[in-house]
Amino acid sequence: MIEKKIEIEIEPAGKRIFLENPVNGLDAILNSGIHIKSECGGKGTCGKCKIIIIDNKDNIALSKQEKKILTDKEIKHGVRLACQQIFDRNLKIFIPPSSLIEEQKLQIEGEELDIRVDPICKKYFLNLEKATLEDLKSDFSRINETLNKEYGKKAGNIDFKVLTQMPLVIRENSWKITTTLREKTKENEIIFIEGGNKTANNYGVAVDLGTTKIAVLLIDLLRGETIDGIGIMNPQIAFGEDVMSRLGFAINDNHNLRKIQKIVIDSINKTLKKICNRNKINPQQVIEMTVVGNTAMHHLFLGLPVRQLALSPFIPLINSAIDLKAREIGIDISPGAYLYMLPPIAGFVGSDHLAMILATRLYEQEGNCIGIDIGTNTEIALKTEKGIECVSTASGPAFEGAHIEYGMRAAPGAIEKVTINPDTCIPTIETISNKKPTGICGSGILSSISELLRSGIIDKSGKFNSNKKCLCKDDKGNLRYILFPQSYYKNIENEEDSKKINESAEIAGEDSENLKELKYRNNTISINQKDIVEIQLAMAAIRTGIDILMEKNNIGPNKIDKVIIAGAFGYYINPEDAINIGMLPPIPAKKITQVGNAAAVGAKMVLISREEREIAEEIARKIKYLELTTHPAFSDFFIKNTFFPEPDK
Amino acid sequence: MIEKKIEIEIEPAGKRIFLENPVNGLDAILNSGIHIKSECGGKGTCGKCKIIIIDNKDNIALSKQEKKILTDKEIKHGVRLACQQIFDRNLKIFIPPSSLIEEQKLQIEGEELDIRVDPICKKYFLNLEKATLEDLKSDFSRINETLNKEYGKKAGNIDFKVLTQMPLVIRENSWKITTTLREKTKENEIIFIEGGNKTANNYGVAVDLGTTKIAVLLIDLLRGETIDGIGIMNPQIAFGEDVMSRLGFAINDNHNLRKIQKIVIDSINKTLKKICNRNKINPQQVIEMTVVGNTAMHHLFLGLPVRQLALSPFIPLINSAIDLKAREIGIDISPGAYLYMLPPIAGFVGSDHLAMILATRLYEQEGNCIGIDIGTNTEIALKTEKGIECVSTASGPAFEGAHIEYGMRAAPGAIEKVTINPDTCIPTIETISNKKPTGICGSGILSSISELLRSGIIDKSGKFNSNKKCLCKDDKGNLRYILFPQSYYKNIENEEDSKKINESAEIAGEDSENLKELKYRNNTISINQKDIVEIQLAMAAIRTGIDILMEKNNIGPNKIDKVIIAGAFGYYINPEDAINIGMLPPIPAKKITQVGNAAAVGAKMVLISREEREIAEEIARKIKYLELTTHPAFSDFFIKNTFFPEPDK
Repeated sequence: MIEKKIEIEIEPAGKRIFLENPVNGLDAILNSGIHIKSECGGKGTCGKCKIIIIDNKDNIALSKQEKKILTDKEIKHGVRLACQQIFDRNLKIFIPPSSLIEEQKLQIEGEELDIRVDPICKKYFLNLEKATLEDLKSDFSRINETLNKEYGKKAGNIDFKVLTQMPLVIRENSWKITTTLREKTKENEIIFIEGGNKTANNYGVAVDLGTTKIAVLLIDLLRGETIDGIGIMNPQIAFGEDVMSRLGFAINDNHNLRKIQKIVIDSINKTLKKICNRNKINPQQVIEMTVVGNTAMHHLFLGLPVRQLALSPFIPLINSAIDLKAREIGIDISPGAYLYMLPPIAGFVGSDHLAMILATRLYEQEGNCIGIDIGTNTEIALKTEKGIECVSTASGPAFEGAHIEYGMRAAPGAIEKVTINPDTCIPTIETISNKKPTGICGSGILSSISELLRSGIIDKSGKFNSNKKCLCKDDKGNLRYILFPQSYYKNIENEEDSKKINESAEIAGEDSENLKELKYRNNTISINQKDIVEIQLAMAAIRTGIDILMEKNNIGPNKIDKVIIAGAFGYYINPEDAINIGMLPPIPAKKITQVGNAAAVGAKMVLISREEREIAEEIARKIKYLELTTHPAFSDFFIKNTFFPEPDK
Repeated sequence: MIEKKIEIEIEPAGKRIFLENPVNGLDAILNSGIHIKSECGGKGTCGKCKIIIIDNKDNIALSKQEKKILTDKEIKHGVRLACQQIFDRNLKIFIPPSSLIEEQKLQIEGEELDIRVDPICKKYFLNLEKATLEDLKSDFSRINETLNKEYGKKAGNIDFKVLTQMPLVIRENSWKITTTLREKTKENEIIFIEGGNKTANNYGVAVDLGTTKIAVLLIDLLRGETIDGIGIMNPQIAFGEDVMSRLGFAINDNHNLRKIQKIVIDSINKTLKKICNRNKINPQQVIEMTVVGNTAMHHLFLGLPVRQLALSPFIPLINSAIDLKAREIGIDISPGAYLYMLPPIAGFVGSDHLAMILATRLYEQEGNCIGIDIGTNTEIALKTEKGIECVSTASGPAFEGAHIEYGMRAAPGAIEKVTINPDTCIPTIETISNKKPTGICGSGILSSISELLRSGIIDKSGKFNSNKKCLCKDDKGNLRYILFPQSYYKNIENEEDSKKINESAEIAGEDSENLKELKYRNNTISINQKDIVEIQLAMAAIRTGIDILMEKNNIGPNKIDKVIIAGAFGYYINPEDAINIGMLPPIPAKKITQVGNAAAVGAKMVLISREEREIAEEIARKIKYLELTTHPAFSDFFIKNTFFPEPDK
């Protein structure tokens, strides 16, 4: 009998569920462990369980209730009520944040340094003398004269939109105004004029534009503090989950390029508005935005052509910083405000990596230091006394949960840590937010593999040791290691709940003899041989990048003084797991630092400090990029690195 | 009996005609001496005699033929066929150039200097090395590297629109491109990228934006030569003939401001297209535009608010140069091209005056030198060893033919020179293009007054000497001096025509006795007492400006080394006339130079030379503006100057 399962991919959790039979949408989502809102109990009257069908929007069923509750525009764009849909075919759906009981937490901040606050845009209050027939200076001269007299400053230029607003602001505010000067070069530019004294407020926005998520930080430019931050999913996910499919979408069709640009700009504008509103700030008061992101996100955000980036040899258009009026691409902040884009380094090393190098001070670390950003593409920088050299390596989406059967993103309910009792081979799992397990996220997989290796359940080639009694076979005869339900749970919700779940789960118990009898059932959470191969490939890609950088610079593992791991995924992994499975070279774990979202921190740093901006541009000019795919030793290293190291028993 | 005449004002000639009775429009126009096209003989079938009714557009009669020939849009905008209209009420009409047999000639060029051609925008041909996996530089870096290697140049920046076009241009042209670098500061900017080697062509446009006329010059930036020039009427004339009425239109209503801006930008775009087309150049190849004009034209062109400029104390928004992407205000040239606006000096001293000072080298003349731009506002600059000081004086539109009964602009048929035989008091007239006289233009009026004064027909207070037999009285008993028909004609068309016209005219003959009997008839061309007063006021305004500047700088007429008269009007006047009537101080006529449209020359100079641009900005920073209206001696000087000097018999 050929079993055909229905596969439902649920964004933004990145969770895939498999159904044997058609199931009501609301039930399917709730059963998967995702907490979607529903107040009417599935009658289709409350309208809370809105979902968006991403694929094949044209002929989706539409119930009477949906017709009643949804707007025409919503219907056209594939919005439906989960409770009114039957999941009877492969589907990809997106659950908007408003339909989730708990918004997915996106790590948007990282470890920050104390730096001198000295933004490129500064405010000056001016009490102008009123123009008379005896004093006929132009408005602009008058501003300049007062700027010079009071603050020793001079504007060489004024933004054209600001110029058109200037006379009214001056005259409606009794000649008392606040000018914002962008002091980039000697040619300072007036980019904002407000009535009265507004020097106590100065706001900027820093954006980390990731393939999956976007972090938007509202920054106080006077104090250098983050006022608020919002993490959202990158809505371009509707045009492809990974960079390459998005580039493919935009590559040949200018209309598509505009579309994929617009969706992200609209989304940032919306987030900007939200974050400003809830902090009682007018978005028009935001006087600068800095953006970091990988090179594809950088190009798509600016609406730059991507053909040369999507096809070999993968060339970025520009690797210098871009200063652009935000209005030119429709970013809705102060009309004269600039958008500052940190420079990409190469086709697959973006400005987010540069921001990380800046934020971690990698460039001035003593000795030899590795900086690493793990993702679908992993960027690695090696700082030696000769400078910084970097590579990009295609580590694939396994760490983000894709291509792993029960993989998911780091959302609540994801198994993030696994400990295997070497004697019983029984796993202990921990989940994000201590929710009932719904899948495995990247750090959980890393942790699982490390433990499987340590406990001898897999060997150094990654193969399951079929002698191990803790393994079981599925219907097709494939070996699986089951993580849930067969576990000890730690801290699930509260003790009461924990007990309940433990009882409801079919626990194999501590008696190892029982494992023998364990029968595989669908919808348990398990790891299969293919999952392990995916991780081997990902891990080998990263380690090969590191090895080639080290070899080229003639540095062995013992000469590495520090490894800095950046990024949300890197923040949650156990460094020892990474060393154990060989993703990182054998170094003492204490040399490893995890810094979280250093890219967002870098974006903030260049927003609040001119000096940091100069440093970042200087790094960009000096950093060397090494192409791995044409490196002669690449294949040898890669094959060697697909093997796990001898486990450290 | 009260006589009520119908007054028809005809633009762009600036001619007024007076009708006793309702008359067919085509006939009225042809009778006035204006050569409007008509091929069907007034049947309304050829559609050649299109006119635009400027006032009261709403309820103009519309014949069947007009409905047939004209588009709805035309009808809505007041376009009609002259032959289908009856001029039965006061009207203001505009005859578009396409309806005129001979386009009105607008002087668009002036005397030029030899300057070093060194435009701010230069082209460089680059043969780029193709990107490969071994050579992964970004497109922008690649361009910069080749620029540096081949030409020792570096671009710090690239226009955003150009950036979006760059990769395709590079790859569709086998990596051979021409970049245009704008070398303003150390931060050179790439503003244009073309495929192949386009270094042999480099085009710019210089615009002199006058209240009445606009001169558009297409310039070869390699050779510094004017390829072609077109003079058009400023279409804003539909919103008011003079600066103040246009400002009044735009002052309170942002919509009106946009409207009056758009009409001039559309018109310049159209002219640009025309001038480019006829020289086989794509407007997208034009890589810079420079614009000069009075401060009101400057502001309206940029769409800047004008309230503070229209009301006392008449403050301009800015008196620095503006560098603006031409696309920001909709000027349709190369997408990355800049618009360079020379700075205005004061509310009533525009950048056209600055351009004149530059083009005439006033600023570096030896000794004391006066530069003067005669118009509705006359700007006067006095250069001494202490620097340059300037004033603006409201000389009114008399020199442009307005407020003068038979006044008109300097169009074909305008009387431009008058010589009065002191014995017979009979005038000899010369007309522009030697056409049959249709009115008097500014230089003709100046010449008339000078001759009337010299021959004792008017006294130094401007009053007609009623003893003079050459004067006659009109129906109302007002004295008039008739210029035509009672004249000797010089060079009208050819000798045959000249004879014919002389015969058809009622010549008073050389016998002075006959003059006594001369009876005034309507539609003769004559000068009345009011005309003379208008000129006295205009002349006094100008002379007062000069006197106050001279007094303030302690310089008498004998210390003036040079007077430079710029502008179309100033080009045609006889300097001796100007001295005779006291408009200029008593200086030897040989010290006077007439340079024509120096403003357009200045606009061209700053387009083809960086150095000239710097000089102009330096002048603008240093020049002093003196407000006349608040000067304590203004009234005394003005009253004194309304009297003509003792004539030089």
